Amino acid sequence: MLIKIVNPNTSKGMTRSIHAAALAMAAPGTSVDAVSPAMGPASIESHYDEALSVPGVLAEVAAGEQSGVDGYVIACFGDPGLDAARELAAGPVVGIAEAAMRTAAYLGRRFTVVTTLDRTRGRAWDLAERYGVQRFCAGVHACDIPVLELEEDPDALEKVTQACRDAVVRDDADAVVLGCAGMADLCADLSAAIGVPVVDGVRAATLQVQSLVAMGLRTGARGEFATPPSKPYTGLLRGFSL
Amino acid sequence: MLIKIVNPNTSKGMTRSIHAAALAMAAPGTSVDAVSPAMGPASIESHYDEALSVPGVLAEVAAGEQSGVDGYVIACFGDPGLDAARELAAGPVVGIAEAAMRTAAYLGRRFTVVTTLDRTRGRAWDLAERYGVQRFCAGVHACDIPVLELEEDPDALEKVTQACRDAVVRDDADAVVLGCAGMADLCADLSAAIGVPVVDGVRAATLQVQSLVAMGLRTGARGEFATPPSKPYTGLLRGFSL
Amino acid sequence: MLIKIVNPNTSKGMTRSIHAAALAMAAPGTSVDAVSPAMGPASIESHYDEALSVPGVLAEVAAGEQSGVDGYVIACFGDPGLDAARELAAGPVVGIAEAAMRTAAYLGRRFTVVTTLDRTRGRAWDLAERYGVQRFCAGVHACDIPVLELEEDPDALEKVTQACRDAVVRDDADAVVLGCAGMADLCADLSAAIGVPVVDGVRAATLQVQSLVAMGLRTGARGEFATPPSKPYTGLLRGFSL
Amino acid sequence: MLIKIVNPNTSKGMTRSIHAAALAMAAPGTSVDAVSPAMGPASIESHYDEALSVPGVLAEVAAGEQSGVDGYVIACFGDPGLDAARELAAGPVVGIAEAAMRTAAYLGRRFTVVTTLDRTRGRAWDLAERYGVQRFCAGVHACDIPVLELEEDPDALEKVTQACRDAVVRDDADAVVLGCAGMADLCADLSAAIGVPVVDGVRAATLQVQSLVAMGLRTGARGEFATPPSKPYTGLLRGFSL
Amino acid sequence: MLIKIVNPNTSKGMTRSIHAAALAMAAPGTSVDAVSPAMGPASIESHYDEALSVPGVLAEVAAGEQSGVDGYVIACFGDPGLDAARELAAGPVVGIAEAAMRTAAYLGRRFTVVTTLDRTRGRAWDLAERYGVQRFCAGVHACDIPVLELEEDPDALEKVTQACRDAVVRDDADAVVLGCAGMADLCADLSAAIGVPVVDGVRAATLQVQSLVAMGLRTGARGEFATPPSKPYTGLLRGFSL
Amino acid sequence: MLIKIVNPNTSKGMTRSIHAAALAMAAPGTSVDAVSPAMGPASIESHYDEALSVPGVLAEVAAGEQSGVDGYVIACFGDPGLDAARELAAGPVVGIAEAAMRTAAYLGRRFTVVTTLDRTRGRAWDLAERYGVQRFCAGVHACDIPVLELEEDPDALEKVTQACRDAVVRDDADAVVLGCAGMADLCADLSAAIGVPVVDGVRAATLQVQSLVAMGLRTGARGEFATPPSKPYTGLLRGFSL
Repeated sequence: MLIKIVNPNTSKGMTRSIHAAALAMAAPGTSVDAVSPAMGPASIESHYDEALSVPGVLAEVAAGEQSGVDGYVIACFGDPGLDAARELAAGPVVGIAEAAMRTAAYLGRRFTVVTTLDRTRGRAWDLAERYGVQRFCAGVHACDIPVLELEEDPDALEKVTQACRDAVVRDDADAVVLGCAGMADLCADLSAAIGVPVVDGVRAATLQVQSLVAMGLRTGARGEFATPPSKPYTGLLRGFSL
Repeated sequence: MLIKIVNPNTSKGMTRSIHAAALAMAAPGTSVDAVSPAMGPASIESHYDEALSVPGVLAEVAAGEQSGVDGYVIACFGDPGLDAARELAAGPVVGIAEAAMRTAAYLGRRFTVVTTLDRTRGRAWDLAERYGVQRFCAGVHACDIPVLELEEDPDALEKVTQACRDAVVRDDADAVVLGCAGMADLCADLSAAIGVPVVDGVRAATLQVQSLVAMGLRTGARGEFATPPSKPYTGLLRGFSL
Repeated sequence: MLIKIVNPNTSKGMTRSIHAAALAMAAPGTSVDAVSPAMGPASIESHYDEALSVPGVLAEVAAGEQSGVDGYVIACFGDPGLDAARELAAGPVVGIAEAAMRTAAYLGRRFTVVTTLDRTRGRAWDLAERYGVQRFCAGVHACDIPVLELEEDPDALEKVTQACRDAVVRDDADAVVLGCAGMADLCADLSAAIGVPVVDGVRAATLQVQSLVAMGLRTGARGEFATPPSKPYTGLLRGFSL
Repeated sequence: MLIKIVNPNTSKGMTRSIHAAALAMAAPGTSVDAVSPAMGPASIESHYDEALSVPGVLAEVAAGEQSGVDGYVIACFGDPGLDAARELAAGPVVGIAEAAMRTAAYLGRRFTVVTTLDRTRGRAWDLAERYGVQRFCAGVHACDIPVLELEEDPDALEKVTQACRDAVVRDDADAVVLGCAGMADLCADLSAAIGVPVVDGVRAATLQVQSLVAMGLRTGARGEFATPPSKPYTGLLRGFSL
Repeated sequence: MLIKIVNPNTSKGMTRSIHAAALAMAAPGTSVDAVSPAMGPASIESHYDEALSVPGVLAEVAAGEQSGVDGYVIACFGDPGLDAARELAAGPVVGIAEAAMRTAAYLGRRFTVVTTLDRTRGRAWDLAERYGVQRFCAGVHACDIPVLELEEDPDALEKVTQACRDAVVRDDADAVVLGCAGMADLCADLSAAIGVPVVDGVRAATLQVQSLVAMGLRTGARGEFATPPSKPYTGLLRGFSL
Repeated sequence: MLIKIVNPNTSKGMTRSIHAAALAMAAPGTSVDAVSPAMGPASIESHYDEALSVPGVLAEVAAGEQSGVDGYVIACFGDPGLDAARELAAGPVVGIAEAAMRTAAYLGRRFTVVTTLDRTRGRAWDLAERYGVQRFCAGVHACDIPVLELEEDPDALEKVTQACRDAVVRDDADAVVLGCAGMADLCADLSAAIGVPVVDGVRAATLQVQSLVAMGLRTGARGEFATPPSKPYTGLLRGFSL
C-alpha cells in the first residue's frame, strides 16, 4: 500500500517532520511518501494562502494517480482542496483537520483545538461544522506563533504547552487537537506535559487512509465526486486541463 | 462608484451577458466592469473547476485594488474564492450565490434553487448552510444542461422553465433562485412564464455591493479578514506573493 | 419608485430622523415617505408594546396599498407585523432587524448587536434565528438607554459608543449592528469612533427594498403570503375587515 | 384555582366547545372560564388575522388580572400574543400549540400535525422550532376546511379523520396533534377511529396551566418577562396604556 | 388512577422523600406508589451507575404492568431506561429530567440546571438535546454534593441555594431546574430563598403522567415503541425474557 | 496489542463471524479476541434488548481490564453501554455504529444505512445525531430480516442487496453503512453487487481502536469519563460494585 502525504505549503522542513510522523504510524507493508508542491505559498496563514495552495495540492494528486498511489493525506489543518482531490483520486483522500477532529470525538465529550495564528480560527470552525464535529469542539485557540516559527522558535514547545493547558481548563476538554501540521513533532511532549490525550492530525489522517484502503473503501463516485468533466484550462493553469 | 464583476470562468460570452444584467441594475453614478480571468477553466462544473478558478479571481481582485474598484461581485454560483477576496479587497465583495439566496429569503418562507448539472447541487447546499439560508432553501434541482450550453442549446429556456415549474411545486416554494450566472439573461422570461419571483444572483449581488458601498460598509478588517501576512510564493504562482 | 417607511411607534421625532437616514440612501428617482401610525405605543420596549404596535403598522400598509407604494420598511428592530404586512402588500416589505443583520453577514464572520434595554435582547435573538443569521450573531448587548431618551440624553452617543466598543471586543466581532431605529442618526459617528463597520437597519432596509423593487421582486403569493381570506372584524378593530 | 381560557377569535360557538373540552379536564377545585375577546377577527387563518387577534387577547388577560385569575390558556393554534401575555400576567400562560406539541413529544419519537388551511402550516412550523419540538414534528398537514366550517360541515369529522390517517402513515408518526382549537370536540372520535394517540391542545394546555399553578410556578419575572414599562398609547389603542 | 414512581437507585430514604413530593401533587382519585428496585446501585453518579440501574427500573415496570399501573415516573435526573420502559408499559412513562426541563420551558426564555456532581453534567446536556430543550437550557451547574449526602449534609440546603443563586445570575435565567430527585424536598425553600421559579422534576413528572392518563394518552405503539419481540435471555438476566 | 470485541448479544454464531471480520483487518502484532457476554438477550431488536445487553457488555469490559486489553469494540449497531464502558476502560472503546458512520463520512456527502427491523431505525438516528453524522446520514432503511435470521435465511444476501440498492437510489448516497453486526460477512458481496462503497462497522471499529492505541490515545479521564465513584450494588447486580 502506498500513501502519499501532500504538505500544501512549500516548506521542505515541515514536509520532513510530517513525513516522520506519518512513517511512525504506518503498518508493515505500507509505504509513505511526503511531498511539497512545486507551486504555492511558503506557509498557510490566511484564506488567501489556503486558496492558492490548492493548485499545488491538485497537481500532486494528479501526479500520484499516475504512479499508483492508494490514498492521500492533505497535511494542512485547513484541508485545502479536499473536495477537488476526492474527485481526482481513485482512492481515499483525508484531510488532517478532518481526521484529527473526528479522532478526538472518540475520546470524550469535548475537545479543544490549539492552532497558530488567531486569524485561522474561523477556518477551523468552518471545518468543524462541515465535518459534524462542532458539537464536540469546545473551542479553538491560537498560540500566536506563525507557522514557520514553530520549528525555529526555541520557546515554541513551552508556548504551545501553555496554550494547551489553558485551553483544556477553559473548555473543560477531554482531549486536545493540534491545529497545525507543523505541531506534529510536539505531540508526544505535549501529551506528557499536560496529561490529556493530544491528537495530531498527520498521524490520525495517515492511519485513517491506511484503514480505508485496508477495507477497500474509496470516495463514492456515483455523483458529486465522479471524475470532473473535461474541459480547456487557459493561461498559467492550462496544465490542469483534464 | 466602480463595481467590478468577476466571472470566474474564461467564457467571454457569459461575461458579456453577466455584464448586461449587472449594468441594467446600476444606479446613475455607478460604473460596472465585467471581466473573465486570464487563467482557469472554461466553465465551472466540479469542485476541481471551482478550486482552480480561484487564482484567476484573486488576480482580478488584486488588479482591481490597483485601479480604484469600490466593490466586487464574484459571478459564479459556487462563490469561488470569496473569503480570500475579502482579505484582499478594501471594499466589499459579494458572491452571487450568497446574494441570490439571501435576497430570496426576503420573499417568503422557502425558495428553491434550479441549477445546471446534478453534481453541483452539493456545493449549493454547502453555501446555503454557510450563509444561514438553509432554513429557507427547500431544494436544489438540476436541469441537466452543461453551463456553456445554456447559451447555445435552443431549448435551454424551455428546459429551465420546466425545471423551475417542477421545483416550485415539489418544494412548495415562494420563489426561485437561479443557480448559475449563465442563466442571468433568462430571468425575466422565467418569471413571466412561471408566475413566481425568480432571483438572479448577478443582479442581486450587483445591487448588494452598490448598497454596501453607498452605506460606507466594507469587510471588517480586525482579524480573520485583515490583509494576509506577506510571504513568498513559488513556481507558477510566484506572482501571487504579497 | 415610492418607498414607505413605517415607524411602528408614535414618536414623531424618531420618525423624522428615520426619514432623514432613509432619504440619504435613496437613488435618484426613488421617493421615500416616513410615517408614524395613528394608534399604538410611544415606544417599543416589551413584547406587549411590540404586539400592540402591529395594528398601526398594518393600517399604514393598507393605506399605502391605496396610494401606489412600491415597497415598505418596518422601522423598529423587532420587525413587528412583518409576516402580516407581507400578506397585505403587493410589493416587498423589509424589517430593519432583518436587513441590518443580513447586511452585516456580508461583512465578516460575526457581528454584534447593540440595543437599548436589556429586556429586548430576547426578541433580537428570536429574529436572528428566524432570519438565519444566528450563526453570524455573536452577541446582543444593551446600552440601557430607553428608546425615547436616545434623542434627549446628551450622553447617549458616548454611552452607545462605549457599548459598541465593548461588544466588539467581547464578541471578537467584524461589525456592529445597531439594535434600534432610534440609533440611525448615530451611525456615522459610531463607525468613525470605533473603526469597525456599523450597520444601521433603516439605511440597510431602505436600500434592500429599493433593490427588490428594481429587480421586480415581491413576496411570493402562491400560498402562505397570499392576500388573507376576508372575514368580519369586530369591536375596536372592525376597520380591519378585509 | 381559576383558569381563564381565551379563545382569540370572536366565534362564540367555538368558545363554547373549547370551554367544554377544558372543563372535562379540570380537577375538583379548579374553575375554568372561557371567553372570546370584544374585538378582533371571526377566525384566524392568516398572519394578518393572528396579529390582529392579539389586542383582544391582551385585553382579556388584563381583565383577568383584575379578577384573580391564576393562569391562562390561549386557545388558538398560533398561540397569538403569548410573550406579551406572559409579561402581563402574574400567573402562568400557556398556548395550545405549545402544550399540544410538547405533550405529544412524551408519546414517542414523532408526531404529525393536522390543521385547517394550507396557508397556516408555516406558522405551525415556526412554533415547533420555537418550542424545541421541531425534532419531534414530522409533518404539518392541512385538511383544507376553513376554521368556522369545522363546526358546520357535516363531513368535517370524516375529512379530518382521513387527513389524520394519511398523516400518520406518511410521517410514520406515533401520535397526532390537532392543529386548531376548533377540532377539540373531535378528539375522542379521531383517536378511536385511527387507533393512534390524538392530542388536543385545549385539554393539554388546561392541564398544563393547572399543573403549573399546583406547583406554584409562574413566568420568571427577572428580565424579559417583567411587567412592561408604562408609557402612553394613542388612538384606537389608547386604552392599552399601562 | 394509579401512578408508580420508580426511584432507580436503591436508597429507601430518597424513595420516601420522592414519594412525599409526588403525593403532594396528586389530584383526588389518584393513587401514587413509590419504589426502589430490588437490584442496582445505591446512587447514580456515572454512566456506569445509570446503565446498571436500568434492569431494576424495567423489573419494576414489568411488575407494575401486572398490577394495573396507569402510568410511571422514572425518578432519576438521567431518565434511565426511559425508551425501554415505554416499550414495556401500556400507559405513559415520564422521566423527571424530561418533565422538569419541558416544564421550565413554559416559564421564560431560559432555565439553568443545578445538579450534584460535575461529572453528571454531560448526561443532562444529552437529555436537553434529546428532549428539544437545549435552546432553553442556558447552563448545567454542579453543587458538588454527592447524591446521598443531599439528605445528610447539614449544609446541603445552603450550598444548593448558593449554587442556584449563582447559576441564575451567570445564565441570566428565568427559572431553575433541580438536577437530582434527591433535591425534591428542597424545592420550596429554594424558590423562597432565591425569588425565582424552581422546578422539581418529581412533581413535574407526576403531574405530567396524571395529565396524560386524564387525557387517555399513552406511548404510541405503531412501531418503535411496540412491545419488544420476545426472545431468550440468559445468565443473571434470564428473568427478563419476554 | 490486544483488542477485545464484545458482541453484546449471546449468539455465538454471530460472535464467530464478527471475529472473522475483525481478524481480517488486524495488523501484524495485533491480537483480537471476540466474546459474547454471559448474560443478556439472544439478539438486540428493541430498546429493551439494548438496555439489558449493557450489564453483560460491562462485565466483559471489567474482565478485559483484568487481562490487559488495550482497547474494545462494542459490536452491536446500537452501541450499547458505550459511555459506561469508556468510564471503566483504561484504553479506548469504540462502537460499531460510531465507527461505521464516521468512516462513511470520509467517503462523500451522504451515506445511507441499511438495518434489520424497522423498529430499530430510531436508535440509529439517535446515534447519528450524537456522533455528529446526522448531516451525512441521508436515510435509515430496514430490510425486515430479524437479526438472527441474517445467518439462516438463504435469501438474506439477496434481500439485503436489494435494500442497499434501493437505499442508494432513494437517498442519492455515496456509500452504504451496514446497520447490524450480523451483516459483517455480507460486506464484500454487497459492495461488489451494488458498485458503491459499503462500510461494515466491525471492520471500521476494529481498525479505529487499533489506530487509537497506535497513537497512544485513550478516553480523556479528567471529568465525565473518569473511573466511576465506588458504591454498593445490590440484588442480582451486586457483582457490579466497584
